[in-house]
Amino acid sequence: MRVTVSGGVHGNELLGIYLVKTVQNEPLKFENIDVDFLLANPKAIKECRRYIDFDLNRSFGKESLEKDSHIYEYERAKVIKERLKETDFLIDLHTTTANMGITIVLSQDDPLSNSVAKILALEYDDVRILRWFGNSEGDFINSITPSSITIEVGPVPQGVLDADLFFRTKKVLLAALRILELGEKCEESVECYDIFETVGFPRKGQELEGMIHPELAFKDYSYLHKGDPVFITFDEKEIFHEGDEGFAVFINEAAYYEKDIAFCLTKKAKI
Amino acid sequence: MRVTVSGGVHGNELLGIYLVKTVQNEPLKFENIDVDFLLANPKAIKECRRYIDFDLNRSFGKESLEKDSHIYEYERAKVIKERLKETDFLIDLHTTTANMGITIVLSQDDPLSNSVAKILALEYDDVRILRWFGNSEGDFINSITPSSITIEVGPVPQGVLDADLFFRTKKVLLAALRILELGEKCEESVECYDIFETVGFPRKGQELEGMIHPELAFKDYSYLHKGDPVFITFDEKEIFHEGDEGFAVFINEAAYYEKDIAFCLTKKAKI
Repeated sequence: MRVTVSGGVHGNELLGIYLVKTVQNEPLKFENIDVDFLLANPKAIKECRRYIDFDLNRSFGKESLEKDSHIYEYERAKVIKERLKETDFLIDLHTTTANMGITIVLSQDDPLSNSVAKILALEYDDVRILRWFGNSEGDFINSITPSSITIEVGPVPQGVLDADLFFRTKKVLLAALRILELGEKCEESVECYDIFETVGFPRKGQELEGMIHPELAFKDYSYLHKGDPVFITFDEKEIFHEGDEGFAVFINEAAYYEKDIAFCLTKKAKI
Repeated sequence: MRVTVSGGVHGNELLGIYLVKTVQNEPLKFENIDVDFLLANPKAIKECRRYIDFDLNRSFGKESLEKDSHIYEYERAKVIKERLKETDFLIDLHTTTANMGITIVLSQDDPLSNSVAKILALEYDDVRILRWFGNSEGDFINSITPSSITIEVGPVPQGVLDADLFFRTKKVLLAALRILELGEKCEESVECYDIFETVGFPRKGQELEGMIHPELAFKDYSYLHKGDPVFITFDEKEIFHEGDEGFAVFINEAAYYEKDIAFCLTKKAKI
């Protein structure tokens, strides 16, 4: 089985980039898996930007993969799709400014991806599973391989390395490789969070009118009730939660301001 | 007296940008000062990047201001210098990923700048004064006005708004304007921190070899002794502090990775 570990799909998420550079130089010994490493967006990595023209992790849809384009990331996506054509399992490394600890994001629903995620969640107290299947903006890199997990860790600013998170993530990455090497399976039912809605910032036209409320800030995976304060406007008016209740994630993720996602709502489920 | 409040000298430091947009629409009433607002790097603000071609806050030296250039920020610096030619006092708003609370940075040594900084430090428990006079990379925007303070606040990631810091900074900004309006003076001697050295990351050639040690992370303004752990390499070797002791600031500031500043060392002094 061929496993690809990718970092730098977003060029300013340093943890994945340096984890790939570190682990690929270590003497890993596997018999059943062939491990391959990828720095996904070299131009964005060089400039320490999320992307050059468009989010690479939304560039794997039919449209972007099949037509010639002036968008650097669309061309890079074509190259990566070819490069990963033998890959059976992708482990994609990301960071977030949200306080999400170590989250295994599942964006496809298949037995192998599910099994790896579940074993990791059972093995580590600080690991949670989040499922995010729908995405209108364009397909994730995960869509080009049969199975995958994304390891999403935070809080850490863009362009910054956090040593504690780095070594915790390294342990989880090596555990994922061990699970694949040994072909470990998990029959147990394990808790996960399913994203069912994204919530935008308060705006007047295009213009931002407020921020995440201090009482919601850094409270990823806490339950948001109707009436809880969620935003505060620049002129100090509080805005309270209406609509569906759920566990909030990706609260105040830097890269989601432009996508107008202030946070996502999830429901607990079992895999 | 003409006072200019600037935000967005760095386009991904959202606090200053939205504080300028907020305060300029409030009915401020002053008799003795004429307050003017500036969004300094509109192109970088639009793209939510620190800068387009070069750090605008290092673009106010003789070289950049006098010669035609292909660098966007050098041209913008010329425009800003002309725009601020009547400005007597500049209040420049910045954020940092370092845990520096609210820091008044003084980059020039004159009675008015000193007085404003000292009154703010005496008035607010969470405000410290940092002096940073030398800078080999190019001159700060502060160098084009007779007097100035920089308000530097953190920790907050690039591209993110933190409501708590936003409103604390707003209070300090309005207090600075009040001090200038009333012509308040401070004869007291007040504690400050003087930067005397910058410390780079461990590297092999150009390549980063390690990160800020977890024991130093977020410990801005703590005293760094010889032998204290300062870095940890990607292969988990600890590196201990050698050389001068001092109070560390700008620990793990995202924008300083490219300047090879892992942190700065300061000495306490009195103004």
